[in-house]
Amino acid sequence: MKKPAKISNAVIKRLPRYRRYLNELRRKGVDKISSNEFSRLIGYTASQIRQDLNNFGGFGQQGYGYSVEGLYNEISAILGLDKSYKMVVVGAGNLGRAIVNHTYYHKAGFVVEGIFEVNEKIIGEKINGVEVMNYEGLVEFVEENGIDIGIICTTKDVAQEVADKLCFAGVRGLWNFASVDIETPSHVAVENVHISDSLHSLAYHMNKNNEGKSDN
Amino acid sequence: MKKPAKISNAVIKRLPRYRRYLNELRRKGVDKISSNEFSRLIGYTASQIRQDLNNFGGFGQQGYGYSVEGLYNEISAILGLDKSYKMVVVGAGNLGRAIVNHTYYHKAGFVVEGIFEVNEKIIGEKINGVEVMNYEGLVEFVEENGIDIGIICTTKDVAQEVADKLCFAGVRGLWNFASVDIETPSHVAVENVHISDSLHSLAYHMNKNNEGKSDN
Repeated sequence: MKKPAKISNAVIKRLPRYRRYLNELRRKGVDKISSNEFSRLIGYTASQIRQDLNNFGGFGQQGYGYSVEGLYNEISAILGLDKSYKMVVVGAGNLGRAIVNHTYYHKAGFVVEGIFEVNEKIIGEKINGVEVMNYEGLVEFVEENGIDIGIICTTKDVAQEVADKLCFAGVRGLWNFASVDIETPSHVAVENVHISDSLHSLAYHMNKNNEGKSDN
Repeated sequence: MKKPAKISNAVIKRLPRYRRYLNELRRKGVDKISSNEFSRLIGYTASQIRQDLNNFGGFGQQGYGYSVEGLYNEISAILGLDKSYKMVVVGAGNLGRAIVNHTYYHKAGFVVEGIFEVNEKIIGEKINGVEVMNYEGLVEFVEENGIDIGIICTTKDVAQEVADKLCFAGVRGLWNFASVDIETPSHVAVENVHISDSLHSLAYHMNKNNEGKSDN
């Protein structure tokens, strides 16, 4: 399968959601699903679904619907989830620990190889079998172990500095949880996660009486 | 200020981001900003910004630009962030702890009043001064304390059951971190946060060589 040159970011952002729903269907042993059924389940219109998936060559058969397993595998490949990734976590606070302890990531091929901290009380500890190391050794570790992704779980004041170090050391992607938008060189991908934004959307929807449902 | 009847969810989802950037400007002592400058900073087109903010009556003055403090306060009020909210956390694992320990929420008026767990080893512990209580007491606590928001930090297998209990007890909003989409009655708002989705988007962008930037 060839990847098309240009797919809008809005479509890319919907793919993980398609994949999640397809995964649930797989687990329930469903083999195929019509675009109408899939629409009811996932909450996008059938036409939206067809349009989105046509970006990648379709996958549906007229009068048959989508093959759940086939579509799941295709979307996984498009997202690059058929590969594995080496990751480091910077910042061993509660959020960093939550990520290291989340067994899903390991099973899905996102493997935490090291955790880095400035707090000497925590250095040397093991979290889910992964050693917490001194932040001073970050660049060397990333270079020597061919780390792909840096996960930033620090305060926002030092997040850009940490990002710069990780980029210098050669990561290809940053997953940033500090509540500031991180800048990267153009060859390094970045996802800035602002967890509070969804709490603020929630507050909005709670204040619209009787229209409380958000749509995410 | 009157709220208009119908604002698209896409606009609502951008408001927290506007607010974050305005807050940074405020902290730096900036009084006003033109829509062009604001556009360069936040990465939306100036026309998009004008269109978004016109949903709420504008706030800009011709030849002057936007008042940073004024716009920040208006967006905060639209989002309902001029009020305070009582919250409970269900599940005192690492993610639950991260939320309880994040002092931002408390300062912003989102106050965690109680934490609930089934694990007896943790019940009775205090996290950031908040007591971990037996899950069996959840409904009574929510009712008696007029809790507004339930935060679900459990595994996905029990998340819907926890959500049902919280809705029954009278919360007006659910902030769900279990990796399954939660269903609620129409009067209860819900935000399903799927942290892994952004990791999957990151993987996609890392595999598009030299187009590594995502746009979030």
